[in-house]
Amino acid sequence: MAKRMIVTLLTDFGRADPYVAAMKGVILSMCPRAQLVDLSHEIPPQDVLSAAFVLAHAAPYYPPGTLHMVVVDPGVGTDRRILAARFGEQLFLFPDNGLITFVAERMPLERIVAVRNTKYLPSAEPSRTFHGRDLFAPIAGHLLNGLDIAKLGPQPDSYKLLDFPAPIPQEAHILGQVIYVDRFGNLVSNIPEQMVRHRYAELDKMRVICAERDAGMFQGTYAFVEPGKPLALFNSMGYVEVAVNRGRACDVFNAEIGTEVRIVER
Amino acid sequence: MAKRMIVTLLTDFGRADPYVAAMKGVILSMCPRAQLVDLSHEIPPQDVLSAAFVLAHAAPYYPPGTLHMVVVDPGVGTDRRILAARFGEQLFLFPDNGLITFVAERMPLERIVAVRNTKYLPSAEPSRTFHGRDLFAPIAGHLLNGLDIAKLGPQPDSYKLLDFPAPIPQEAHILGQVIYVDRFGNLVSNIPEQMVRHRYAELDKMRVICAERDAGMFQGTYAFVEPGKPLALFNSMGYVEVAVNRGRACDVFNAEIGTEVRIVER
Amino acid sequence: MAKRMIVTLLTDFGRADPYVAAMKGVILSMCPRAQLVDLSHEIPPQDVLSAAFVLAHAAPYYPPGTLHMVVVDPGVGTDRRILAARFGEQLFLFPDNGLITFVAERMPLERIVAVRNTKYLPSAEPSRTFHGRDLFAPIAGHLLNGLDIAKLGPQPDSYKLLDFPAPIPQEAHILGQVIYVDRFGNLVSNIPEQMVRHRYAELDKMRVICAERDAGMFQGTYAFVEPGKPLALFNSMGYVEVAVNRGRACDVFNAEIGTEVRIVER
Repeated sequence: MAKRMIVTLLTDFGRADPYVAAMKGVILSMCPRAQLVDLSHEIPPQDVLSAAFVLAHAAPYYPPGTLHMVVVDPGVGTDRRILAARFGEQLFLFPDNGLITFVAERMPLERIVAVRNTKYLPSAEPSRTFHGRDLFAPIAGHLLNGLDIAKLGPQPDSYKLLDFPAPIPQEAHILGQVIYVDRFGNLVSNIPEQMVRHRYAELDKMRVICAERDAGMFQGTYAFVEPGKPLALFNSMGYVEVAVNRGRACDVFNAEIGTEVRIVER
Repeated sequence: MAKRMIVTLLTDFGRADPYVAAMKGVILSMCPRAQLVDLSHEIPPQDVLSAAFVLAHAAPYYPPGTLHMVVVDPGVGTDRRILAARFGEQLFLFPDNGLITFVAERMPLERIVAVRNTKYLPSAEPSRTFHGRDLFAPIAGHLLNGLDIAKLGPQPDSYKLLDFPAPIPQEAHILGQVIYVDRFGNLVSNIPEQMVRHRYAELDKMRVICAERDAGMFQGTYAFVEPGKPLALFNSMGYVEVAVNRGRACDVFNAEIGTEVRIVER
Repeated sequence: MAKRMIVTLLTDFGRADPYVAAMKGVILSMCPRAQLVDLSHEIPPQDVLSAAFVLAHAAPYYPPGTLHMVVVDPGVGTDRRILAARFGEQLFLFPDNGLITFVAERMPLERIVAVRNTKYLPSAEPSRTFHGRDLFAPIAGHLLNGLDIAKLGPQPDSYKLLDFPAPIPQEAHILGQVIYVDRFGNLVSNIPEQMVRHRYAELDKMRVICAERDAGMFQGTYAFVEPGKPLALFNSMGYVEVAVNRGRACDVFNAEIGTEVRIVER
């Protein structure tokens, strides 16, 4: 019996326009039993960093063999390459612009190829501005129908990784910054829980400072402080997060991506 | 042949972040043939009342045996319980914070349990802040694979219901309030159609007042008044609704949740 | 083995309210193996023109036999008809208000009927305000279960088409206007690529003017100009489009639907 292969879609296309639906139509036309899952289409336009972050914190939870098709592609129509890769047991199809950065940090690379084999590319000339529909979706269709990614093209010499900021452990503190703001206004920093736990034996002696304002000590969860009060915690993605119980930390701290976050002894 | 079990997801997570996609990945990893349906992810953050309302007006339309997983959970990581229940022929999995209020009003309770059986909980320690991914989704996976909810734990002594406002029939009028504002700006009141019809034989002698402004008589549908004009009607959910044809009643009446709605004789 | 029939949904309901989920429940109750795809639910309220545009640029990509259910329906509850039609190999179910305009321009009409056969309409009286749930979804369920649209009712004498603006080729230029603004702020005009190519042999002698401002020459794709710079191109839907690389043309040109777009010799 035909397997139902899962494909997730991650784009900055939003949901109002016909773009996402057109890609889904192309995929279903090639593979009617595909199970389509929206990873997200609300990535801010052309924001490769946010897309890379969302991808790395959703893809690992999918069944082995899931294909993740990522189309956040400000270089569409230029000579930037399209890559297909297997990290761990997950498959990825994406433009070579750094989208795979956080996945590559966390999951072992098994195989990567530059998509070039014209046998698996549509014979019609693709549009210059919508490779999601005209190239990514047809390639995804082939992969969902069982094509080995090795058939798509040769291994590239290298692939792009984002030069994203790393946290800096200093003598008296750890210096990091906000790398993601979620729907609740929670401020996700680039400081890993492991770095903090490794460096400081006594967590209850530490405080978190964000945008020069005190977020207090590490708490177990949001509701451990009063509504409206700030807190810090280790979040479900393994990072230090600054939050406000039932409020929006991004507003309370007047913070955004790039805002400084420090762990200090109190 | 394997059944395709349906699971709906209702959260306040939005669609931009990796949270919904991570939960779906966990469910599909346990039950690859699950049919995932987004009930809504646009519930305002922590708004248990709106979520309870949306749940009650969508869940009853699903096939018997559908599982509705609801994660609007401001108390995540505290000792609030996770409940599993069967109302009518629908299954529900939700934190014990009142989310089930309007379902419980309309559908017969068949069974309710507090999820406690460690045999069906993940062996890994869950995060403190994302039980949707670490507890709800794995439990949903077991239920989709056929587990009887009775196996999940004992019947609780009670479960939380929201103390939401009831309409007040008074001598000369019925006094209610807005309990939901939809995308079109329509103002849904807490006054049931049945209460109005039962009390007043001659509907065409009644007017609806909202925020001290006249919404006029009951109409059959929006287009029965001129574009831009206000009206009242019995909506598809069985409540008195104040609307503006092709306009936004919430703006025209300057109304929001809690705004007074009265049915009066003209 | 049961086929999995595909049904797409296109509405102006948004995703926050229970409306879309209720319709999906009705469809799944009648046809549990249906594959539901969201075409879009973010059409601006009552905006039949935008919905017609989105439909025409997504539906053609779906597998033969796909059903497209469109509920942008400001006349709900009035005597406007519900139509079912086959254009090319796609099925459509929609209120007779012009939604099919752009599909009818591009795809051959095979069959159209006014839905009237009470045998396939629910026996319960439908609500006056939510035909998506009470009429469209049950009819879709029958079609997904294999019902021939010819059984739904007689062929109508005519059906509504929108009186949308056509581009005007003039002596020295082509005069058109913006008909769609997408998520990226790109300005899609009503001027077809074919009209421009047919009329002007030397494209590099042409410029595009939008809202009296110069958008420059035609480019291959967005990234062929510097970030922040305007450009014109032939977009993936076959129209002249005015854009700004990594920016929002609608803001830069202060343009909206109806704004003038001209192709001129430079």
